[in-house]
Amino acid sequence: MPASPPAPAPPNGVTLGRARDLTRFPVDPWALRELNYSPSDLGRTETIFAVGNGYLGMRANPEEGRTARAHGTFINGFHETFRIHHAEEAYGFATVGQTIVNVPDTMVIRAYVDDEPLLLDVADLEAYERTLDFRAGQLVREVVWRTQAGKQVHIRSTRMVSFPERHLALMTYELTMLDDEAPIAIASQILNRQDGADEYDDTAAPDGWVAAARGEAGLDDAGGPTGTMHDPRRSGAFQGRVLQPEVQRNGGSRSTLGYRCTHSKMTLAVAMDHEITAPPDIAINEDHLIRDDGAEHVYKFFAPKGVTFRINKYVSYHTSRGVPAAELADRCDRTLDRAMKIGAVELQSAQRRWLDDYWDRCDVIVHGQPERQQAVRWCLYQLAQATARAEGNGIPAKGVTGPGYSGHYFWDSEIYVLPFCTYTSPRFARNDLRFRHTMLGAARRRAAELSSDGALYPWRTINGEEASAYYAAGTAQYHIDADIAYALIQYVAATGDVKFLENEGLDILVETARMWYDLGFWRSSDTERFHIHGVTGPDEYTTVVNDNLYTNVMAKFNMRAAADAVAQTARDNPTAYQRAVARLGLHEGEAAEWRHAAEEMHIPYDFQLGIHPQDDQFLEKEVWDLASTPADHLPLLLHYHPLVIYRFQVLKQADVVLAEFLRGGDFSFQDKVADFDYYDPLTTGDSSLSATTQAIMAAECGYQELALKYFDTGLFIDLEDLHMNAEEGLHVASAGGVWSALVFGFGGMRDYDGQISFDPRLPDTWEALTFRVTLRGTRIRCELDHETMSFTVEDGEAADFTVRGAPVHVEAGQPVTVDLETEDEPRLIGTPTLRDFAGSRRADGTVIQTVTPAMPSETRLGAEAEAIEAAEAEALRPNPA
Amino acid sequence: MPASPPAPAPPNGVTLGRARDLTRFPVDPWALRELNYSPSDLGRTETIFAVGNGYLGMRANPEEGRTARAHGTFINGFHETFRIHHAEEAYGFATVGQTIVNVPDTMVIRAYVDDEPLLLDVADLEAYERTLDFRAGQLVREVVWRTQAGKQVHIRSTRMVSFPERHLALMTYELTMLDDEAPIAIASQILNRQDGADEYDDTAAPDGWVAAARGEAGLDDAGGPTGTMHDPRRSGAFQGRVLQPEVQRNGGSRSTLGYRCTHSKMTLAVAMDHEITAPPDIAINEDHLIRDDGAEHVYKFFAPKGVTFRINKYVSYHTSRGVPAAELADRCDRTLDRAMKIGAVELQSAQRRWLDDYWDRCDVIVHGQPERQQAVRWCLYQLAQATARAEGNGIPAKGVTGPGYSGHYFWDSEIYVLPFCTYTSPRFARNDLRFRHTMLGAARRRAAELSSDGALYPWRTINGEEASAYYAAGTAQYHIDADIAYALIQYVAATGDVKFLENEGLDILVETARMWYDLGFWRSSDTERFHIHGVTGPDEYTTVVNDNLYTNVMAKFNMRAAADAVAQTARDNPTAYQRAVARLGLHEGEAAEWRHAAEEMHIPYDFQLGIHPQDDQFLEKEVWDLASTPADHLPLLLHYHPLVIYRFQVLKQADVVLAEFLRGGDFSFQDKVADFDYYDPLTTGDSSLSATTQAIMAAECGYQELALKYFDTGLFIDLEDLHMNAEEGLHVASAGGVWSALVFGFGGMRDYDGQISFDPRLPDTWEALTFRVTLRGTRIRCELDHETMSFTVEDGEAADFTVRGAPVHVEAGQPVTVDLETEDEPRLIGTPTLRDFAGSRRADGTVIQTVTPAMPSETRLGAEAEAIEAAEAEALRPNPA
Repeated sequence: MPASPPAPAPPNGVTLGRARDLTRFPVDPWALRELNYSPSDLGRTETIFAVGNGYLGMRANPEEGRTARAHGTFINGFHETFRIHHAEEAYGFATVGQTIVNVPDTMVIRAYVDDEPLLLDVADLEAYERTLDFRAGQLVREVVWRTQAGKQVHIRSTRMVSFPERHLALMTYELTMLDDEAPIAIASQILNRQDGADEYDDTAAPDGWVAAARGEAGLDDAGGPTGTMHDPRRSGAFQGRVLQPEVQRNGGSRSTLGYRCTHSKMTLAVAMDHEITAPPDIAINEDHLIRDDGAEHVYKFFAPKGVTFRINKYVSYHTSRGVPAAELADRCDRTLDRAMKIGAVELQSAQRRWLDDYWDRCDVIVHGQPERQQAVRWCLYQLAQATARAEGNGIPAKGVTGPGYSGHYFWDSEIYVLPFCTYTSPRFARNDLRFRHTMLGAARRRAAELSSDGALYPWRTINGEEASAYYAAGTAQYHIDADIAYALIQYVAATGDVKFLENEGLDILVETARMWYDLGFWRSSDTERFHIHGVTGPDEYTTVVNDNLYTNVMAKFNMRAAADAVAQTARDNPTAYQRAVARLGLHEGEAAEWRHAAEEMHIPYDFQLGIHPQDDQFLEKEVWDLASTPADHLPLLLHYHPLVIYRFQVLKQADVVLAEFLRGGDFSFQDKVADFDYYDPLTTGDSSLSATTQAIMAAECGYQELALKYFDTGLFIDLEDLHMNAEEGLHVASAGGVWSALVFGFGGMRDYDGQISFDPRLPDTWEALTFRVTLRGTRIRCELDHETMSFTVEDGEAADFTVRGAPVHVEAGQPVTVDLETEDEPRLIGTPTLRDFAGSRRADGTVIQTVTPAMPSETRLGAEAEAIEAAEAEALRPNPA
Repeated sequence: MPASPPAPAPPNGVTLGRARDLTRFPVDPWALRELNYSPSDLGRTETIFAVGNGYLGMRANPEEGRTARAHGTFINGFHETFRIHHAEEAYGFATVGQTIVNVPDTMVIRAYVDDEPLLLDVADLEAYERTLDFRAGQLVREVVWRTQAGKQVHIRSTRMVSFPERHLALMTYELTMLDDEAPIAIASQILNRQDGADEYDDTAAPDGWVAAARGEAGLDDAGGPTGTMHDPRRSGAFQGRVLQPEVQRNGGSRSTLGYRCTHSKMTLAVAMDHEITAPPDIAINEDHLIRDDGAEHVYKFFAPKGVTFRINKYVSYHTSRGVPAAELADRCDRTLDRAMKIGAVELQSAQRRWLDDYWDRCDVIVHGQPERQQAVRWCLYQLAQATARAEGNGIPAKGVTGPGYSGHYFWDSEIYVLPFCTYTSPRFARNDLRFRHTMLGAARRRAAELSSDGALYPWRTINGEEASAYYAAGTAQYHIDADIAYALIQYVAATGDVKFLENEGLDILVETARMWYDLGFWRSSDTERFHIHGVTGPDEYTTVVNDNLYTNVMAKFNMRAAADAVAQTARDNPTAYQRAVARLGLHEGEAAEWRHAAEEMHIPYDFQLGIHPQDDQFLEKEVWDLASTPADHLPLLLHYHPLVIYRFQVLKQADVVLAEFLRGGDFSFQDKVADFDYYDPLTTGDSSLSATTQAIMAAECGYQELALKYFDTGLFIDLEDLHMNAEEGLHVASAGGVWSALVFGFGGMRDYDGQISFDPRLPDTWEALTFRVTLRGTRIRCELDHETMSFTVEDGEAADFTVRGAPVHVEAGQPVTVDLETEDEPRLIGTPTLRDFAGSRRADGTVIQTVTPAMPSETRLGAEAEAIEAAEAEALRPNPA
């Protein structure tokens, strides 16, 4: 019973927080804009204006370098390793720490007018505007600067990380003296800041993350209590250099630096080249220098009034697990040669074309909601920046926008980001799943360390080795195996990519199913049900429990899916099957064992409360008194010892609710409502993963206002900095969750084992909603208003699905419009495998009028099925009146 | 289900291990002897031949320094602090690491003959003997060394840490040239080895613990999975100096060094002085030098054949939390001045007199068992060395014999060592309890950090701050509060020291009771029983559980004892009561709340199995297949991830069994047998605390052979190095447990709430057993053989107790002999508060014939009471025959 002085009730996870200053950040449907410079929230703006392509990411540090919360350029998967020192060691604790490296900064282009540098913090800025353009795919800044001598200087700069050219970034820098002339110097640099090379940065303040190491704590909400404290930049894990210089090349307008990471041995090369555009009569002097940790090209000239000087800075990064840096330097040369031949203008056009295509596939229109529309597009744009060119890597929890979570991959990608990819850009999803396949060897070794068969994916990792130093909220989250299997099956069902299933997919499914079958056990005292003990579910406010509902539901799915995939491959592609048998040592009857365990999986159910307990002991706990918890004691993890938190019914995120979204076909509508009603008030939302799932399930349960509140929490989490840690990077999973909340929540789409259905829940205050999904190669535009839902094939041939239970067939050139019933009552979402039934009551006492589509009743979940049968029998009893 | 290839069955905790080499370590009733030098097991011999007095301890490193597993001199409580770096941080995690410091070494006395140094490893030793004399209280070594020149040198040296003079050590060194003459140099040193001053040690090998830091892991079995790895000497927590030099004084034959710890700011001074005894006609040259990290006095002379040169080296250590080192140096001077005035011979006599007195109080005679007798005396001698002059400090888990567990205090002292102290040397027990009282402020702060009222003692500490870096097997062991309360009540009951109870004792009892009352809660769903959730019991193979039986039983005791103490003080000493009310803010009704919670404490009971589950979920787990666990996979904690271990019914130590020993009056004999039968096969004994408790309860349950096996495991744990970590220091708790096993196990003594009783269980193979206990100042010699038990008052007046239920009164000069029944069946131990009943069955199927003494039935433990009532009713049913 924690001492809790009375205080205002907390908002139960719905924290809309401070409103944005719309005069500074005006609403724009296709851009994020900033109309005046402020150093007060650099951490946030560096993140939300960042540019990237899933491989390379650059925080929105100003061209001038200098003042920053943290300078940062990140390459997905490019990491240093270190030995994790546990304050107390134990067998099997993670040993190989991994952290994304802050790679050399190429953003720096400094201007000196009359030898006076532009310093945003002190400059007299007559105009300032910064725009992240979602269609152009670049960050544009325009300033008019009045120098101390009183001269007006116009500077327009752009920064773009190319989508079509994975290894390329392009910056342009235009300077015009507006009302006078002056001698000008423009210095373009590469700076290795990872190893502290700020000696080049003449007015640099201490780096934000370095400052943080001096005592400031960050909030970390997915990877353990304070995963970011784990950032070795903070904890001093690196005593020496991270990047060992191996290459310095310098010739003409190009400089190249190459490095090798001290411990991970990964290699990197970075090169820059320059094009200068100026009137032919103006002499331009060029100086350059190169050192271990930096390179610089300085262009000096005398600028007459009204003449524009332009520098195009082409930058290339290449990285490798071990190819010599000199070889990577050659690759940079090839990228730069090709790019400069194409030219800046055409590269910018190609970027726009790539994004046009992206928006065609992915755009979501929230009609009549301009502020939300902007935020939605920002989220979708961030999803592109986090995933598009990850290729061979996973999707870090912060994309490539910051060092948060050390650049690690979590289940975030499979459960929160991959649905978006699968239904809009399946190639991105396939990349992630292929990446997981490459980690299978490490996952097999990890399973063995945990005394288990099969493969156990690490809770957090870059290189495939478990990097979670707090096992209770890390390694114990075995569910990651099933999360990966879930995304895989969803991908295969949505795309029909059976070839992937038969090769990489089967390996993952079989090895994860084996892990579950070995981890769980048959319990004779319980009429031979299958149990899983000693695991942690997604809700990290309860750890190491028996029969976590989420875990069991997902493991059940995983084992059944593996058995199905084996059977399907054996039937449809005997050659692939034989190869798999040989490759995986599949033995007779193995799949039948998984199927049996899946069928008999124990799913906790409490008859008295009529809910699914989060785990077998969850209801033994007291309920945390959230109403009396001081608002400044949230998030709980920063104010209470884990032992205290674990002792109560209180949630970081509601994993029962999540399970009932992901495996909605396994649960009745009544269950979903009962469980939502039970868990939502216990949910703090201290996890950034919480809000969008609550939005989806609130929508399904018919709590429209609540759904919208949760949606907004997810939508503005970074733009409004609701979790006060946007500085550490974007919450990619929340951005993915925003798409899911739009399509699954308000659009009411479900994919139950390949059966697509829609049962929309358009918020009252919204005019209409338009989104696209791609099903087996057919892209469908879905347009939803309060009366109808229309489907138009934009690309591909045809698709079949249901709308509120009624089958719909749509073909190219033949849009279909479905009239929606207009009653207010919530309806059954999805194609049920359990019969729903009318007459049951919601928490508010109202009776659900839902008419159940006549679907066959399939397998029911143990106790739950019995409860439903009992309720049905009760309902059928003759009325005593 | 861990993969477990079939292998020989492990010995279920009874690991007698390798036999000692009795030709090297001969049996001797009053000494531990070593007849030849071997460098093969230096770590063990350094520990088992160590000398100390509870304040100062010196490992048995040879006088020559040099070859060692680890040189070590330790002062109880003298520690350095460091910040604990958690690989992942969380709120409330322990932050202040503490580690005992290896204080400057004064043992070094090096001899050079013909300028050739004596190096034990390479020397031609014609004779070697080392004796730790339990009555003389000193370590004596005699060697005859044949130098490379062929000269025979006899060296006899002694080393003593004084019991009467807390701050004094005395060494003597006698050298005689047996068959030739030679120039001799004898160098006496102080060496600060903590800061690596082995440059003075001309042939030093790398320090053992330094070597260990290079990759060798230690086994740690009380303070978390691998607490010793936590030793900052290993983990490199100290980057700079630990001891900052502050004083160097050097004059005549005396040198003094003073230091201050860099972080803890504790101060220390160490001084040595010398007396040389030699024929008056022989000139002795003396050189000396002093530096920051060492001091040396060298005595040079020409030794004729047959003449003995003797050096007496007087050493003094003084330490403080902050008194300037110069002031401590003055104290050293005063100690040395006094000691040298007394002289070496008289100091040695005083040591012997002190020990004569100690043995009068504490000796246990195991008649006809010479090897066990020696080991028993060794254990008792170690208990003196660990506790006698701790004064103001706790009792470290390793005493002052090694750096294991970083010199921390655990519950070991209160549960395993204090019973010995309380019944033989109550002043030692009082010191420990007073020390716990001084930690109350820190314990109050820790409770607040854990969001709890009252005081929560740290699981491991030196300075009162929690130092356990693995909370699941550390901070979560809330039971330490009750363990301290238990030892306190036991001390007060055995001594009648009510004054202590009314002052310090009440503070501890009230604040711990408050913690329990706040930690636990009333559960309405369970007819208002009181529950305690989210704690870890003593068995660390299961962590963070609900309603751990041990914890609940002990918390019940703690709350009731606090309520009783408050009531008793209010009745007997209103002044003290009023002071306590003011001091503690005691409010009306508070004690009644504790009493009510104690009465209604939930005690888990399983009707189906007829046992007490270790906790509310324990029986949900599968049983670990110990029979199939490879022997080389023990201890489990070094071969399985905690998640794997926690998933199963498998024990490091059986805490239900321990609870049923400590609170034996709360359980029926039937329960104890059923629980022992259930838990013993699940118990690995991976904790060194396990064996002696299993011995006591095996004896109570009538498993005589098993009791003896467990007794031997505890008895020889260090002498035979059964846990293979004797090098890190003595297992003090096991030594205390040996006394408990003798007196409580075989002697059958119990103290249930102040009622002393005996129900002996002499092993068949033993002739007789003699032990002493002091009850309220009366020392009684108890002599047990197979027919009788005799009691003689050796000191004091009279005492009352029961023997097998019959009251006995013994007075000075009037010994009493009680005839024991001779049947083999086990009997009820102790004065029951529950009626036992005959006719119940043991695990082997035999029927217990015990006749229950006619005692009133008192409070019963919930479910248990009901079960017993049902069984009783069944027993009373008319016989159908």
